[in-house]
Amino acid sequence: METTGRIEHDFLGEKEIPAHAYYGVQTLRALENFNITGITNAQEPFFIKAFAYVKKAAALANSDCGVLEPAVCEAIVYACDQLIAGKYQDQFLTDLIQGGAGTSFNMNVNEVIANIGLEYMGHQKGQYEYLHPNNHVNFSQSTNDTYPTAVMLCLYFKLNLYIEALSDLRKSFKRKAAEFEQVLKMGRTQLQDAVPMSLGQEFNSFATTLNDDLKRLREAQRKLTECNMGGTAIGTSINAPEEYPALCVKYLAELTGLPMVLAEDLVEASSDMGTYVHISSMLKRNAIKISKICNDLRLLSSGPRAGLAEITLPAMQPGSSIMPGKVNPVIPEVVNQTAFYVIGADLTVTMAAEAGQLQLNVMEPVIAFSIFTSINYMTNALNTLRLRCVDGIKANVENCQAMVMRSVGIVTSLNPILGYETSASIAKEALATGKSIHDIVVVERKLITQEKWNEIYSFQNMIHPVFINA
Amino acid sequence: METTGRIEHDFLGEKEIPAHAYYGVQTLRALENFNITGITNAQEPFFIKAFAYVKKAAALANSDCGVLEPAVCEAIVYACDQLIAGKYQDQFLTDLIQGGAGTSFNMNVNEVIANIGLEYMGHQKGQYEYLHPNNHVNFSQSTNDTYPTAVMLCLYFKLNLYIEALSDLRKSFKRKAAEFEQVLKMGRTQLQDAVPMSLGQEFNSFATTLNDDLKRLREAQRKLTECNMGGTAIGTSINAPEEYPALCVKYLAELTGLPMVLAEDLVEASSDMGTYVHISSMLKRNAIKISKICNDLRLLSSGPRAGLAEITLPAMQPGSSIMPGKVNPVIPEVVNQTAFYVIGADLTVTMAAEAGQLQLNVMEPVIAFSIFTSINYMTNALNTLRLRCVDGIKANVENCQAMVMRSVGIVTSLNPILGYETSASIAKEALATGKSIHDIVVVERKLITQEKWNEIYSFQNMIHPVFINA
Amino acid sequence: METTGRIEHDFLGEKEIPAHAYYGVQTLRALENFNITGITNAQEPFFIKAFAYVKKAAALANSDCGVLEPAVCEAIVYACDQLIAGKYQDQFLTDLIQGGAGTSFNMNVNEVIANIGLEYMGHQKGQYEYLHPNNHVNFSQSTNDTYPTAVMLCLYFKLNLYIEALSDLRKSFKRKAAEFEQVLKMGRTQLQDAVPMSLGQEFNSFATTLNDDLKRLREAQRKLTECNMGGTAIGTSINAPEEYPALCVKYLAELTGLPMVLAEDLVEASSDMGTYVHISSMLKRNAIKISKICNDLRLLSSGPRAGLAEITLPAMQPGSSIMPGKVNPVIPEVVNQTAFYVIGADLTVTMAAEAGQLQLNVMEPVIAFSIFTSINYMTNALNTLRLRCVDGIKANVENCQAMVMRSVGIVTSLNPILGYETSASIAKEALATGKSIHDIVVVERKLITQEKWNEIYSFQNMIHPVFINA
Amino acid sequence: METTGRIEHDFLGEKEIPAHAYYGVQTLRALENFNITGITNAQEPFFIKAFAYVKKAAALANSDCGVLEPAVCEAIVYACDQLIAGKYQDQFLTDLIQGGAGTSFNMNVNEVIANIGLEYMGHQKGQYEYLHPNNHVNFSQSTNDTYPTAVMLCLYFKLNLYIEALSDLRKSFKRKAAEFEQVLKMGRTQLQDAVPMSLGQEFNSFATTLNDDLKRLREAQRKLTECNMGGTAIGTSINAPEEYPALCVKYLAELTGLPMVLAEDLVEASSDMGTYVHISSMLKRNAIKISKICNDLRLLSSGPRAGLAEITLPAMQPGSSIMPGKVNPVIPEVVNQTAFYVIGADLTVTMAAEAGQLQLNVMEPVIAFSIFTSINYMTNALNTLRLRCVDGIKANVENCQAMVMRSVGIVTSLNPILGYETSASIAKEALATGKSIHDIVVVERKLITQEKWNEIYSFQNMIHPVFINA
Repeated sequence: METTGRIEHDFLGEKEIPAHAYYGVQTLRALENFNITGITNAQEPFFIKAFAYVKKAAALANSDCGVLEPAVCEAIVYACDQLIAGKYQDQFLTDLIQGGAGTSFNMNVNEVIANIGLEYMGHQKGQYEYLHPNNHVNFSQSTNDTYPTAVMLCLYFKLNLYIEALSDLRKSFKRKAAEFEQVLKMGRTQLQDAVPMSLGQEFNSFATTLNDDLKRLREAQRKLTECNMGGTAIGTSINAPEEYPALCVKYLAELTGLPMVLAEDLVEASSDMGTYVHISSMLKRNAIKISKICNDLRLLSSGPRAGLAEITLPAMQPGSSIMPGKVNPVIPEVVNQTAFYVIGADLTVTMAAEAGQLQLNVMEPVIAFSIFTSINYMTNALNTLRLRCVDGIKANVENCQAMVMRSVGIVTSLNPILGYETSASIAKEALATGKSIHDIVVVERKLITQEKWNEIYSFQNMIHPVFINA
Repeated sequence: METTGRIEHDFLGEKEIPAHAYYGVQTLRALENFNITGITNAQEPFFIKAFAYVKKAAALANSDCGVLEPAVCEAIVYACDQLIAGKYQDQFLTDLIQGGAGTSFNMNVNEVIANIGLEYMGHQKGQYEYLHPNNHVNFSQSTNDTYPTAVMLCLYFKLNLYIEALSDLRKSFKRKAAEFEQVLKMGRTQLQDAVPMSLGQEFNSFATTLNDDLKRLREAQRKLTECNMGGTAIGTSINAPEEYPALCVKYLAELTGLPMVLAEDLVEASSDMGTYVHISSMLKRNAIKISKICNDLRLLSSGPRAGLAEITLPAMQPGSSIMPGKVNPVIPEVVNQTAFYVIGADLTVTMAAEAGQLQLNVMEPVIAFSIFTSINYMTNALNTLRLRCVDGIKANVENCQAMVMRSVGIVTSLNPILGYETSASIAKEALATGKSIHDIVVVERKLITQEKWNEIYSFQNMIHPVFINA
Repeated sequence: METTGRIEHDFLGEKEIPAHAYYGVQTLRALENFNITGITNAQEPFFIKAFAYVKKAAALANSDCGVLEPAVCEAIVYACDQLIAGKYQDQFLTDLIQGGAGTSFNMNVNEVIANIGLEYMGHQKGQYEYLHPNNHVNFSQSTNDTYPTAVMLCLYFKLNLYIEALSDLRKSFKRKAAEFEQVLKMGRTQLQDAVPMSLGQEFNSFATTLNDDLKRLREAQRKLTECNMGGTAIGTSINAPEEYPALCVKYLAELTGLPMVLAEDLVEASSDMGTYVHISSMLKRNAIKISKICNDLRLLSSGPRAGLAEITLPAMQPGSSIMPGKVNPVIPEVVNQTAFYVIGADLTVTMAAEAGQLQLNVMEPVIAFSIFTSINYMTNALNTLRLRCVDGIKANVENCQAMVMRSVGIVTSLNPILGYETSASIAKEALATGKSIHDIVVVERKLITQEKWNEIYSFQNMIHPVFINA
Repeated sequence: METTGRIEHDFLGEKEIPAHAYYGVQTLRALENFNITGITNAQEPFFIKAFAYVKKAAALANSDCGVLEPAVCEAIVYACDQLIAGKYQDQFLTDLIQGGAGTSFNMNVNEVIANIGLEYMGHQKGQYEYLHPNNHVNFSQSTNDTYPTAVMLCLYFKLNLYIEALSDLRKSFKRKAAEFEQVLKMGRTQLQDAVPMSLGQEFNSFATTLNDDLKRLREAQRKLTECNMGGTAIGTSINAPEEYPALCVKYLAELTGLPMVLAEDLVEASSDMGTYVHISSMLKRNAIKISKICNDLRLLSSGPRAGLAEITLPAMQPGSSIMPGKVNPVIPEVVNQTAFYVIGADLTVTMAAEAGQLQLNVMEPVIAFSIFTSINYMTNALNTLRLRCVDGIKANVENCQAMVMRSVGIVTSLNPILGYETSASIAKEALATGKSIHDIVVVERKLITQEKWNEIYSFQNMIHPVFINA
């Protein structure tokens, strides 16, 4: 049987808190007020960890400034370390999307830290006269500097995993590029047969394009190390000792090992969403590319007999409840869908960022939610794509090659020798009659010798064409 | 200790299924293949229920067509009834976003029904020779007709709750409109003082605009009753008895109590996403309006002393971890954010709908996911907005009225008497000198009498102006 | 040499107006203030026409109410008729995107009508004492009722052309469906070979899906006949005679021949963007479908030798500056791009609609701009698609049929006879060995007779399968 | 009277070209095929210029490689210089949105250059045996390398103007920040009164946030100098001499003065849209911020008597056709709308980038169109905002200050002395009774002395608070 809870109050009145709870009255109000997504802060352990780093750095800085007694500081530090170690996660059940610009989650953290600290000090939970959520844990702070700083740190940590997954995927494409180096195939532009290339070149281009995104994501990630700690309510640093901001950021850098710096204009930093928009844009950019690659994988593996069938994806599950033997490209399909999620989430971020007014952007929680879920889903998708699809792709070598030699597009190689117009007339004849380019050029019109043909249409020359003149 | 599971196979090979599991090998593959969101079909009970209706209707229709033995049909019907009653929800742990166009969830349903049915028939789970997921439960069906039909039914059920929440919110605004009927306030266009109105008129306009959305949503909801059952794989009805489609839809109508009809062109219906786009668009439309209303509520309640302060929202929680006494409009804020989510989700739907190719839209699961979550979140938000904000809004009557009488905008009422240009010159003088319109018009320039002034500026005439000529 | 212009003034001061100009001082200010897109109201003749109807209806209603002298009314009516006849278009050079919620365009119309009317009355341009842009032309009106009403009328007229283009395209697909009725081809789901169908069924599904959109667009169009004339500034009808709103709408209905009605809640109607969002959503819905169809056309015509090559699009231009003989699907490509424009424009509408505040949505001009350009571009695109592509599509009959018979997917027809698992094993063998389904089933395993095979795989039975049991 | 035109042909047949035209048969086909937007390449002079640089560099490189005769090279160079000088713009009337991935515009450029060159060589237009659009002007090139390179160069040039406009706007905000340095005002978070700041700090934050965007835009602009010249059709460099790519890029760098480099993976570069997505994202980011600033300007200038009225925007035009004396924030309004356009256009870019398939993104023209128009419109908007609004903003000093002193939010400064809870009780009393903080704290409760009060609430300490302890 649940023992009677303790009574806590804030300036709106009193509330009974469950006896076992480390959170307090303001968290309780948030639990009542915000029931939207069912996705809680407890599901984002990096967010709790990030917030704990922030609170610990603030406590140490306050202590250095002489505005926090050593014993109180010690208790806060202890509590933060517990959170950093991953304990008490179940105390953070507020919804990720919340009103109040994150005040509820900040107070949730303040209250949990206070109560862990109180017990550490030998007091009872709720005896805030010894260690108060606002007066001590939140000293020199506001939601408006701690919450964004914690979001940014959290994003930094999460991006590490994302970048690792993307980098691993890039490597898989690179390996496949080497494996497929000698596979001749038809290149296509506008879905029409164009000129030859190797399947290795195609897979290498996937690796290259992801490598660009890796660079852009790392650049964007670095911008997350600029924070506004010490700006307090609106960036004027009200209620914070003068030396506090720099000290706090110094501690934050030490604790996290990241090159944290203080924003130059704290007023601007309190309302600016630029970095979030930037991160979200780069995630969208990556989603676009990943989706394009998945589109290509599905197209190249179409068939098995009435499609392009240049590659075969590993079979992951029966493809149909009605069509026997059908195997579908289910992994690229689920990744495409994840990419669409990310692109939709970027729009949510866009609207939320635009909706900020005056000295604060109150929509920051939905921005955090959107980017968090985008990273979570897409990190999963990237790993799924690599392990359950790319690593097992096989080339249908003969089919690839056969399509090249029966194509009309190979006539392009004759341009420098025969000119565009003659080549076009050959192409036209081939299309009208069904003949091969070889037969028209070498056998019938005798425009070049078989030897020359062999030179031009050697594998090496199709993959890396040397300019061959008349 | 877990006993050894049973072995099941599909054409890709064998898998060991946990002994307690009602799902089978294809579900297991899906659990391995799709780990993206962590949000499972089990979290959408209406979806399971809808699918059970579909399977039950199909079984009854098959039985009528003579292609399903009575005992097998009975077992399937029994199993479906269990699912409709809300049992076995924990057997549906596949991710809502999945590749395969929903094949995994369809097979999940087929397998669970088969195994429940097998036990009902006195067999062991996995003895599919008596009751087979594909050959019996899925008879005359494909994922490509059952999955969309189940999504549509699920949306229908979910929209009932959404519409109820919206309707309740509308009523709350209507009640407030009556309460504020006599509160004179300044109307504003382009954020500039315009002409007077009553606060009741303003709140009534919120009710009116939501009423329009209710109509549009109900219209859209009705389109969900058109289904493609019996189209099977691509709409040609391959593998289905001729009378089956009509029978199946008839049973579906009976079971659900909804006016289900068969799409006229089953080939088109197999790939069409029009209804989803329509539903999502109407949800977006509503999100836009809800967001606009929340923007207005936040604006009208700005202050308390350096803002408009025309209304006071109920205080739900302390507003700041640093600023004592601050109370924020946290409820409209969280609703705004939810609206941004819905608008982002609509983009996901848009991209997924556009990405469909040829005879099927393989991106349907992310469409379902997006609309499901939009409805879930927004239904929560609508109820939150009503209960935790609108119902408790209070008017700051005196402040509202004072702003009207000190405004310049009231000069508009003099247009018909003095003409636009004279009125403009009065306005200009008022703005330049800080004088009131009354003083310039009645006292100084003596353009109208005090009596006339009283007539024009009576409360009733400001709220419902009668045309008063010179 | 330009003669010296006339001097006009408003409450901000004086301006010299070119002597030839029918517009006045407020238009001149707008020309100076708004130079964003270079796309002017003169480029939207329906918009000018719509506004002229509005002004004419207002004048007639004012006259009936006794607040406008007959001679003045006559002059206004004369001027409006000139505009309706398409004259004076060059007087409307304000940018379509403008601040002021359309006030500039409304004043542009008021000024041009006043000056045309003044000349008609025998006065000079600028002698506003006889016929004043505000006091007479704009009597009983505000930008906030006339501008939205004109936008809605304009949209109504423009949608007529759009719907006609869409209807024509639908008919073209329908004609092609008849032409291709007997062309057997492979249906594909998830880009994998599924089961047979006819090319006619595929093209018919394009016609069907557009027919749905025609219905939805006509429904949406009808909502444009609800207007807020007489609401004046914020919907309280300030400065309008009591009988004026109903009279004005009656005249508007007569003049346009449309079933115009007055909005029930004029306060709501003054700020509501629901109808625009609805129209834009339906345009987006149609763009999604058109884009999907174009994707399919490009896919089905891929090749000519290394693609699906089921159809051939008419060759509209050489496809490459380097690849001789290449012909690209340039028409579907340009239509896809137009669809993406429409989808982007819908987002602009979304953001603008959400940004409305309090009693007016000041962002309405960009909403009008976005929907106007979407309709313009897409109407062009629909006609282009029909005339330059669809009408000339040819089927590659033999290739279509050959792919069916060499496919594995046709095994699905054997499900009811052999069961899903046996069929799956046949499919597996076919895929592994390259054998045809026929050879395995009839020749090797002798599971069915050649006669049964012929029955099952007759053209008619593949297009409209009859359920054939063991 | 127009003399009879010349006959030209391509592999689709013959066409009569107007005698005066410098374009040829392929341009003519494009003019017939693509009539979507009415916005032509002639309206983008930088695009023509950029393409001329590309063609000139290619000719010089070809000449160096010995595959173009000196006289032909000279004629091409002459023609390119004419285009670079801005001549012959009226020859480029193809629609900006076109199918064929830009082939039509490339051929338009090739044809015009050929015919200018032919006349320079003393030949007639159309005598392509001497100077051929494909065989000479397009030598070693494809649309697929020249078109993207020209788009990127064009974007580079256009961004220079954009960045200049943004930089000028930033400076204007900076100047205003200095002007408003001493204006005390209430800071607001969540639209609720927070703590004091100076109006200068607020305007300075606008300058800061735009400065960040300037950095991001310049970073993004630099990525435009990576090009794929020499990749020809699909990046394998088919038909190009080996030394050509490096030479071509070298010349391009010389001619443009930009640090052009060759992409490392030309296959990837042929289909990659990453840079466009990046540029568009950064434009969107800037649009979000500009829109937020405009929202703030409109909010801060709301009133004049029933709003915040902290600042007054310069009056640009009468604000209403019905409300005399009303002046609206029309300039921020038009800028908001432009921002929404840019955000919509970014979605078009997103969809187009995702839709690319295999070795080329055929949707590039609509990407170019979208970014071009976004830059055009927003450059106009930024200059308009600066010149017609920001530079003329005035502070309402007394009103700003009065709101601070009557606010409750100033109690925050007492936190370090009285603690959060006492401060909260003071706030609560103030709100309930209407009393000022000063009266409660100093006069009634005598919690601090008047001297201390003066110290805490000095202007300097409110703008840059020093931590003042009990």
